[in-house]
Amino acid sequence: MTARAVSPDRLSHARKAVAGAGLDALLITPGPDLRWLTGYEALPLERLTCLVLPADGEPFLVAPQLEVPSVEASAVPSLGIEVVGWAETEDAYATAASRLTEPRRVGLANRMWAEQVLRFRDALPGAEQSLASEVLSDLRMRKSPEEVDALRRAGQAIDRVHTRMAEFLRPGLTEREAGREIAAAILAEGHETVDFVIVGSGPNGASPHHEVGDRVLERGDVVVVDIGGTTDEGYCSDCTRMYSLGEPPSLFRDYFSVLHEAQVAACEHARPGVTAESVDAAARAVIAAAGYGENFVHRTGHGIGVETHEEPYIVEGNRTVLEVGMAFSIEPGIYLPGQHGARIEDIVVATDDGIERLNVTDRDVVVLAG
Amino acid sequence: MTARAVSPDRLSHARKAVAGAGLDALLITPGPDLRWLTGYEALPLERLTCLVLPADGEPFLVAPQLEVPSVEASAVPSLGIEVVGWAETEDAYATAASRLTEPRRVGLANRMWAEQVLRFRDALPGAEQSLASEVLSDLRMRKSPEEVDALRRAGQAIDRVHTRMAEFLRPGLTEREAGREIAAAILAEGHETVDFVIVGSGPNGASPHHEVGDRVLERGDVVVVDIGGTTDEGYCSDCTRMYSLGEPPSLFRDYFSVLHEAQVAACEHARPGVTAESVDAAARAVIAAAGYGENFVHRTGHGIGVETHEEPYIVEGNRTVLEVGMAFSIEPGIYLPGQHGARIEDIVVATDDGIERLNVTDRDVVVLAG
Repeated sequence: MTARAVSPDRLSHARKAVAGAGLDALLITPGPDLRWLTGYEALPLERLTCLVLPADGEPFLVAPQLEVPSVEASAVPSLGIEVVGWAETEDAYATAASRLTEPRRVGLANRMWAEQVLRFRDALPGAEQSLASEVLSDLRMRKSPEEVDALRRAGQAIDRVHTRMAEFLRPGLTEREAGREIAAAILAEGHETVDFVIVGSGPNGASPHHEVGDRVLERGDVVVVDIGGTTDEGYCSDCTRMYSLGEPPSLFRDYFSVLHEAQVAACEHARPGVTAESVDAAARAVIAAAGYGENFVHRTGHGIGVETHEEPYIVEGNRTVLEVGMAFSIEPGIYLPGQHGARIEDIVVATDDGIERLNVTDRDVVVLAG
Repeated sequence: MTARAVSPDRLSHARKAVAGAGLDALLITPGPDLRWLTGYEALPLERLTCLVLPADGEPFLVAPQLEVPSVEASAVPSLGIEVVGWAETEDAYATAASRLTEPRRVGLANRMWAEQVLRFRDALPGAEQSLASEVLSDLRMRKSPEEVDALRRAGQAIDRVHTRMAEFLRPGLTEREAGREIAAAILAEGHETVDFVIVGSGPNGASPHHEVGDRVLERGDVVVVDIGGTTDEGYCSDCTRMYSLGEPPSLFRDYFSVLHEAQVAACEHARPGVTAESVDAAARAVIAAAGYGENFVHRTGHGIGVETHEEPYIVEGNRTVLEVGMAFSIEPGIYLPGQHGARIEDIVVATDDGIERLNVTDRDVVVLAG
């Protein structure tokens, strides 16, 4: 979509890591890995586009002939990647395979489609298929200062949408209608795409991933608003805030203050040197101590970058040790089925001595004049 | 996103076809196949959601515990599909596999992610993996009258955006700026998502899949506008029209009239009983006869439904015989590298004695006051 410049270091680091991981090549179809490595934002189409990154030899990108002008307009040529166009009636998988010398192990983009996985299996019958994340997760997880800047700008963009929420959450509108206006604001405030819009009003807020429905917003509702998009720099935003139309019920006030405390505790705990799972535990301990442990039904967070959800996941069992530059959400929640629910979410990035929050709007429940 | 009702016939036809194709089960992760079968629009997340459709036995849907309320709110329960929630620290692939009795051949959703394909390979080591399209392509390709109605409404929605193009294509705006306004109009005119926005001005119009760039629209430009979205019924629109800011150059007028004739020829040829490739040939013959054969660098069209691009592809080599209810684009193009390009695209659906065009706005180049 955009001719995004990316540092050539990414490609050279990846090539070194491919050999180190015992892989003969990476096969990277359109998606977050391709965007991260090359800046090339290809439409995910049934026609094969694939970056081939051999451990030995030069990288090349196989693309349908009609996409070649888009490839040429991207950062791909400036990275020294040869572009190999294929004609509409040609077997693109055979073309890619013919340029590799009997690979024994290849790493597939994690988001490659099954139909492409199976075609590559047939075109490279001697190659064991594994995942590119073996190589790329570690590289993508630690953000460069430029990437942190891009995530900060994404955070500011979604924060601007949250500060406008009084315009959109009007009693009498359905969640879907409010969601449409929020989606338009996500674009207007500096995103290139709308990735998700969750407006969980009243009991719908008790389903963490409810998106929008036909429920009409009413006075007295508490509303979970969890929204995100991708900026023209290719980085994602994701922020959850709580709203109420008029004063929220006292039960809500009670557990919301627990939730707020839990979110602060996790943010204060997170820093380089601690594990991802310990950040989850820090939030969970506060919520469990207050008797709401059963109501916190999901992990505390997920990494974010060129994808909304990526490593490191802030979840029990993930012993990844946090390092400077890792960016992730801290988003505990408490859900009371049939009544309402609450979640507070900031994107944070690990700094030398703690974390920086990339979302900075008021974390208290925002009371809108019902 | 929406609790879309779908006919239970889809599931029962698919189950019958699974056995007929020698498959033991389909494994359907979020995406167009899942939407088509169940109406369930799941977020494509790293947590496994998967419909399992055994040849023998009852279908079930494995979903993360926190998505279960969304599943319950969808059409899934009304279709008699058991919902199996899994907890945040559980192996969902093992859970799915444990409910199948030694399958020997499974069909994967064509859009399943590689990381899921490999996890299922490990969880079901005795099962050969093939594609669900072996079963579902034939079913999805022939639209029911209700699906044709939904595609007609999608066509009307995108037609409304095209009729407003004078608002957006203003000299002095960049393609990207115009594209943002068009995206907002795609939402405002009856789509739930914006799937793509191509604004190819001047020489950018000669790259068929150029999206938007930083080029400033100028008086004298011809502009390719190819746009589409998905309606709240879950069906896709896709329509290309040509605009010029002031009178177009005479060279453009010359080849545009050839293109127009080619598009009409393909539409007049298309009908039940002819092959997909013959529709491509009908358009190509007109363009080649006028000396522009080398400038028509892509196939003539693609099927459309719950996906923008699906079977039947209107391309040389595709001998699929058209049947009533098949819906596809007819979109020949002529591209002059470095100068400009043109494409005319309608979605059409095969009727008893020909086709119905689902896009009906003026197909001539629309001259906007520059």
